[in-house]
Amino acid sequence: MNYCSHCGAPVELQVPQGDTLARHVCSRCATIHYLNPKLVIGCIAEWQGNILLCRRAIEPRYGLWTLPAGFMENSETTRQAALRETVEEACAHVEIDDLFCLVNVPHIDQVHLFYRGRLLAAEFAAGSESLETALFPETDIPWGEIAFRSVAFCLKAYFADRRAGHFAFHEGDLPPLPTIDRQPG
Amino acid sequence: MNYCSHCGAPVELQVPQGDTLARHVCSRCATIHYLNPKLVIGCIAEWQGNILLCRRAIEPRYGLWTLPAGFMENSETTRQAALRETVEEACAHVEIDDLFCLVNVPHIDQVHLFYRGRLLAAEFAAGSESLETALFPETDIPWGEIAFRSVAFCLKAYFADRRAGHFAFHEGDLPPLPTIDRQPG
Repeated sequence: MNYCSHCGAPVELQVPQGDTLARHVCSRCATIHYLNPKLVIGCIAEWQGNILLCRRAIEPRYGLWTLPAGFMENSETTRQAALRETVEEACAHVEIDDLFCLVNVPHIDQVHLFYRGRLLAAEFAAGSESLETALFPETDIPWGEIAFRSVAFCLKAYFADRRAGHFAFHEGDLPPLPTIDRQPG
Repeated sequence: MNYCSHCGAPVELQVPQGDTLARHVCSRCATIHYLNPKLVIGCIAEWQGNILLCRRAIEPRYGLWTLPAGFMENSETTRQAALRETVEEACAHVEIDDLFCLVNVPHIDQVHLFYRGRLLAAEFAAGSESLETALFPETDIPWGEIAFRSVAFCLKAYFADRRAGHFAFHEGDLPPLPTIDRQPG
């Protein structure tokens, strides 16, 4: 952030009076611009024991498989976001059940929420951000090609709970991935 | 939002290619500025059956009672936010238990999360955003002076669950408050 989105003047990093963290503060109109984590919301949708996955048509993680999910928008609820993302990414209509997991990804300022859901029909197709969509039984989940660690966390907890016969709420924190030193050559 | 926070040029409302909603797009550098809901995170902290409340020293709802809670910051987890807010607003240290409730407040683009927690000692005091802090038994909760509906939702669900002997996870959506027509005179 370089400029004030309200008046267009340059911003400066400073700790506002009564605050504890440095914020971007406008040098002219004094507006304080706060930056806060974003919610990513998705759905683990089941049809006759199979799970609906989408293969990503966009970066990051182009070509890898994920649950339908995306950034929550203003003016919607968390359930509406889960419904909307499932329509947009998989052209699928679901009944949303309970919130199933919350995954913190603090190094990228995100909180991921996944709801359990049930497809209303075996009808789905690739939305504009998906290359393809498919139903997977637990035994065929492409674990080596899952796009995001939060999705793998959610799927593993889901199958464990389903085997145990009871769905609980799960919470996890993802640390940054270790940096791999790549030597040229 | 009037200006691009990246380059300072005016922004225009338009639907980016492949998107479905109007966004603020920079007229010069084409940066798309997304606006997303914010997370407010708090703690319902218990000490020997009593609940820790804070009386607000700031607007909105100056002088009314609330649970320690506030906006989640970048680079922290949801639990860290609950711990931090309880220290900042009530100078109290808690052990955080399970996530207890999620309340959508879509008309102000917020999602509120409250964790259950236990005070580690009967030590608390007003932080800079509180006029006073106090422990309340269920029978003395100042229901008519609770600052936010999400806090009342959380407290009611908490006491109901406690009486039932089992804490579940609760989710709720708050609609806008009805506008009261005030006739002059």
